Amino acid sequence: MNSYVVVDPSDPLVQDFLHLNDHRLRQERELPGGDMAGFFLAEGDHVIERGISAGHVLSTLLVDANRKKPLPSFIPETVKILLCGEAVITAISGRASLRDPIGSFIRPSPLSFSQVIQLSTTVVVTERVTNPTNMGSLFRNASALDADLVCLDSTSCDPLYRRAVRVSMGQVFAINHVRIPRFLEGLEVLKSSGFTRLALTPDNGALDIAEISIKEETPVALLVGAEGSGLTKSALQRCDYKIRIPMSRNVDSLNVGTAAAVALYAIREARRI
Amino acid sequence: MNSYVVVDPSDPLVQDFLHLNDHRLRQERELPGGDMAGFFLAEGDHVIERGISAGHVLSTLLVDANRKKPLPSFIPETVKILLCGEAVITAISGRASLRDPIGSFIRPSPLSFSQVIQLSTTVVVTERVTNPTNMGSLFRNASALDADLVCLDSTSCDPLYRRAVRVSMGQVFAINHVRIPRFLEGLEVLKSSGFTRLALTPDNGALDIAEISIKEETPVALLVGAEGSGLTKSALQRCDYKIRIPMSRNVDSLNVGTAAAVALYAIREARRI
Repeated sequence: MNSYVVVDPSDPLVQDFLHLNDHRLRQERELPGGDMAGFFLAEGDHVIERGISAGHVLSTLLVDANRKKPLPSFIPETVKILLCGEAVITAISGRASLRDPIGSFIRPSPLSFSQVIQLSTTVVVTERVTNPTNMGSLFRNASALDADLVCLDSTSCDPLYRRAVRVSMGQVFAINHVRIPRFLEGLEVLKSSGFTRLALTPDNGALDIAEISIKEETPVALLVGAEGSGLTKSALQRCDYKIRIPMSRNVDSLNVGTAAAVALYAIREARRI
Repeated sequence: MNSYVVVDPSDPLVQDFLHLNDHRLRQERELPGGDMAGFFLAEGDHVIERGISAGHVLSTLLVDANRKKPLPSFIPETVKILLCGEAVITAISGRASLRDPIGSFIRPSPLSFSQVIQLSTTVVVTERVTNPTNMGSLFRNASALDADLVCLDSTSCDPLYRRAVRVSMGQVFAINHVRIPRFLEGLEVLKSSGFTRLALTPDNGALDIAEISIKEETPVALLVGAEGSGLTKSALQRCDYKIRIPMSRNVDSLNVGTAAAVALYAIREARRI
């Protein structure tokens, strides 16, 4: 094993793991142009295992030096292991001990939007879903309910951001995702590739989702927007159908991950009939 | 207005609002026997408004003394307003300012299980749902998707706990809840009251939820358990049907709030056919 004991929070070995709770800063560091561009973090034995089985390359693993459990056997020999003392753990996590190890993975090359949609039959498209918790939950639900792919507009947050990876329970690794280079144009590309584009909206004028009819072989793109404001007018206008989940008690919306789950379930049922 | 300026965190007027983030302590203080038994907290103009419209009595409102927006007009004249300085706000929230006011409400008297189920046709029953975020999300979804009532076993957390109220977006006020005095006995009471009891489980041997058939007028109780471990064997055995949401990619479970949303949606559809 390739392991190092780190006792000083200013040690260059651990700089990539600092400021974990500063979402904005972390996202800046990890995205193109940042000092951590090319990497993403994932926490916990289970989620790290999912990342590795999905083919991602674990580069460094940060572990509490007081960890009693042996390291899981799925950690490759080549990984750099940082065994961190209390001062380092406190600087990183704000607590004196760290239950879940943190892995730094090599970020995969982006997929090509026009190529990857050809291989998909159920796609979730996000517009302005900026909250990493919602993004993680959306991936968990999309993965469980038969979606093949998540397409993101430029303002939706990074699914490989640590909090999203965690909330997804590692399901961000089970299902592909891709950025749409130019969003509104991308919606046209989906159409010309044969997709029926369904815009999920709380609007009362929209079609009850239980009443849609979809042929089994028709590719479907489900568009979801930011919680609260929903999809933009320009996105809504470009879709083939506006659909809604009827709600009781004037509840105005569901959480975006939950709404996607119910809609994907309804799409699956519509295809079975 | 009945208002007080509070600058000292040790002022007796604000003691009920301290240690907001210590979940265990807060729950102990608010439940029977605690020094705050008889009260619950709710945050934010919108959620506080929902509490008041649902008929709950707001007793005290804690506000940042630097709040610029006038107090909403729905705050009754009789409410005690605590205008708090920075030291108090910091002691309460850990931050120097407080965006959302915090209201202390009088806790309503518990409902009677055997009475309230007579008035309900779609009931969600929780067993060991101890996480307030999940509980809040469950109420939001239950309220949106036609449930009338949430019945809680003795270990499920308090829906009127601050975090649950917040995550529910105030929907804990829109839908009744009740503790089941003796859980397994309560499941029998549901049966003798005409309820079909559906146990939600990831078990592959369970019935696909899309294939259940329910008469429109049949009362249904949907049982959900703790995330991870699920319903206990004794609860599962006492139900009329075990149902599952089929999941792709070996995803083993959905979040309990999300699973309840999909199941309630499927129950609504089953009743429509």
